[in-house]
Amino acid sequence: MEPIRLYFDFASPYAYFALPGLEKLAEDHGRELEWRPIILWAVMKAHGIAPPMDLPVKRDYFVTDMKRSAAFHGIPYRHPARLPVSSHLPARVYWCLADTDPSAAKEFGRDVFRAFFTEGEDITSEAAIIRLAARSGLDEAKARDAVGGSVGRAKLAAMVDAAIADGVCGSPFAILDGEPFFGADRLPQIAWRLGSQAKVPG
Amino acid sequence: MEPIRLYFDFASPYAYFALPGLEKLAEDHGRELEWRPIILWAVMKAHGIAPPMDLPVKRDYFVTDMKRSAAFHGIPYRHPARLPVSSHLPARVYWCLADTDPSAAKEFGRDVFRAFFTEGEDITSEAAIIRLAARSGLDEAKARDAVGGSVGRAKLAAMVDAAIADGVCGSPFAILDGEPFFGADRLPQIAWRLGSQAKVPG
Repeated sequence: MEPIRLYFDFASPYAYFALPGLEKLAEDHGRELEWRPIILWAVMKAHGIAPPMDLPVKRDYFVTDMKRSAAFHGIPYRHPARLPVSSHLPARVYWCLADTDPSAAKEFGRDVFRAFFTEGEDITSEAAIIRLAARSGLDEAKARDAVGGSVGRAKLAAMVDAAIADGVCGSPFAILDGEPFFGADRLPQIAWRLGSQAKVPG
Repeated sequence: MEPIRLYFDFASPYAYFALPGLEKLAEDHGRELEWRPIILWAVMKAHGIAPPMDLPVKRDYFVTDMKRSAAFHGIPYRHPARLPVSSHLPARVYWCLADTDPSAAKEFGRDVFRAFFTEGEDITSEAAIIRLAARSGLDEAKARDAVGGSVGRAKLAAMVDAAIADGVCGSPFAILDGEPFFGADRLPQIAWRLGSQAKVPG
């Protein structure tokens, strides 16, 4: 069976809310969950989509909805002082780790979510990301290289291109057997599809 | 108890999908469901929000999601040949009917949804809307006046202003005890709130 491909941004509250449920769904149905962290603003920009948090009416609504959705899903949440932020630093480290140690990469990723969404950590700070990387076994020299070097940059740029090609228009954005599902609120439809195996109605 | 206020657009598939569930939730919890049909493009324009269906990547995703969501909710659906369309004609008729006969207004509204989303009816056609209005008891002269006269225009314009003031940023958009819920996918959170009576977490 094909993996479930999951595009997301480390600074996306809805990705953070969706991840535990998606990991459980994938496991229950014997699928791999293939993490694909990207920087959403770069994908949106390529598609000509204005950042929703730039519009006051949407920002007001989404801040309310983010806090409520965390409570609804029963997930610890402290709304970040600054949102949106660019998540290119943790995404670069993830992609450097993923090649050599995929489970350390996911461990680092979960730690980034937890630090940003429950501890008020600034994930745009190089020092903070290097500290988080150390907890997943990257020594400081390697972490510095992952954060600022050309390898992490190149891998992340390639994933942003892949996301644009795959029609990603938000975060989280899952692709299951070629079918796209956007949003934490599509988990019930993913579960239904995994159970029903029916095709998209024409 | 306060009614649940529901802003929506007659040409919004997600409003059509959400309506049966919202009517049931309102009934189960002894609340009135206060319909507030608006023309969404006018509200979006006032807020500076670009129509999502104008962006190819969003359009592709939403067409897939609309068809799938209909199947997921078990609701008959034939994707309209043209979408989005302006729903000002049925909205004007609704508001004219609502004053004198609220239940006929809702009956007309359900008929509009059914005609547009299952029968391929063109709800931008005056003749089609006059025919639908006749089924809810409006004679042709009154229906013509509701469709093109100043009363329907003025009532709809006032509702669009109310929607802008209430922070509406899409359709359907429900307000429950002052708390906003955007999207057919927020029904589980509305149900949870009606059951839990908890406050939005700060």
